[in-house]
Amino acid sequence: MQLEFRLTASRPGGRTARTAEAVTAALTAELLEVGYAGTSIDRIARRAGVAKTTVYRRWGTVGQLVVDVFAGIAGQQVPVPDTGSLEGDLRELARSTITMLREPESRAVFDIVVGEAIHDPAARAALDTFFAARISNAAVMVERAVARGEAPAETDPAEVIRQVGSTWYARMYITGEPITLADADRAAAVTALATRAGLLT
Amino acid sequence: MQLEFRLTASRPGGRTARTAEAVTAALTAELLEVGYAGTSIDRIARRAGVAKTTVYRRWGTVGQLVVDVFAGIAGQQVPVPDTGSLEGDLRELARSTITMLREPESRAVFDIVVGEAIHDPAARAALDTFFAARISNAAVMVERAVARGEAPAETDPAEVIRQVGSTWYARMYITGEPITLADADRAAAVTALATRAGLLT
Repeated sequence: MQLEFRLTASRPGGRTARTAEAVTAALTAELLEVGYAGTSIDRIARRAGVAKTTVYRRWGTVGQLVVDVFAGIAGQQVPVPDTGSLEGDLRELARSTITMLREPESRAVFDIVVGEAIHDPAARAALDTFFAARISNAAVMVERAVARGEAPAETDPAEVIRQVGSTWYARMYITGEPITLADADRAAAVTALATRAGLLT
Repeated sequence: MQLEFRLTASRPGGRTARTAEAVTAALTAELLEVGYAGTSIDRIARRAGVAKTTVYRRWGTVGQLVVDVFAGIAGQQVPVPDTGSLEGDLRELARSTITMLREPESRAVFDIVVGEAIHDPAARAALDTFFAARISNAAVMVERAVARGEAPAETDPAEVIRQVGSTWYARMYITGEPITLADADRAAAVTALATRAGLLT
């Protein structure tokens, strides 16, 4: 199973949708080529073949466009793993997320949203929405683990999700290291162990 | 024991040192009052009572000044906890670090360095230096834990430090939540458990 968390996710048809797709593609291409500081609404509009007034009217700034693209990703439903064990479910969730974050396009958008969220409320809200959706999905995984006797009844799904993701996000944004599938497996093992020990209540 | 990780750390005496102290104090006051985007070398020099040419010559940009202040903090020697148990040592380390990060002045500088490190090599290098010092300190804690039979011999001190810090940094910069001493204690408990289980090798 792959979490469908991609910048190229399909959108409803129509002219507005085609414009959004072209602008999203132009944005990610620009981010990879010239970076956040090097791009502009004008450049993105030209690249997308869209009138720049259209882009200005709809998004106003590159920052708002990035936040909108990220919010589109965050709002997508993702399947919840169901492998029969909490560690297996967490491993699958971790592997899917790390696979997505290793894609240069996703990473470029993620980097900007995380950097902007430190001081910009719109970016902060976009990240909050993303995690609220993940925590709500994880509640099912934790419920099943409790039913199987793998986790104490008072386990907090939000704490499980924070714990599993924390190591790779810290690698990405604090210690500045690459992330691999081995990090996913370790994060799942540590989180399952801590859950069983009743540390994530 | 308190980790000596403060913006007001003493510096060698002399005029250059007094200038650096005044500029550092002015920088943090500005960050708290008007934020990174709102301040400038001119404002900081005026506030510090220092000629702006002096500040321009020594630091050039507000970004470089922030990185320098942070590097000064990162370069300080910090005492290594020695409580008699790995969990105790990690708890003390975690509590000291969180106490420092809860100080508005330290947090303001940390926020900017983390945000800038995403795209700026100088900020990235400053964070790297900070963690290299922490990992080198932690090596002693892990050696003692191995000697006491609390940790497998192949435990990786770098992995222990990444693990213990990851939860509070993820709260600060990913899920955007407050950090408390309860988070310190939980991070220490999870990390000690994972170390004993041989997951941080």
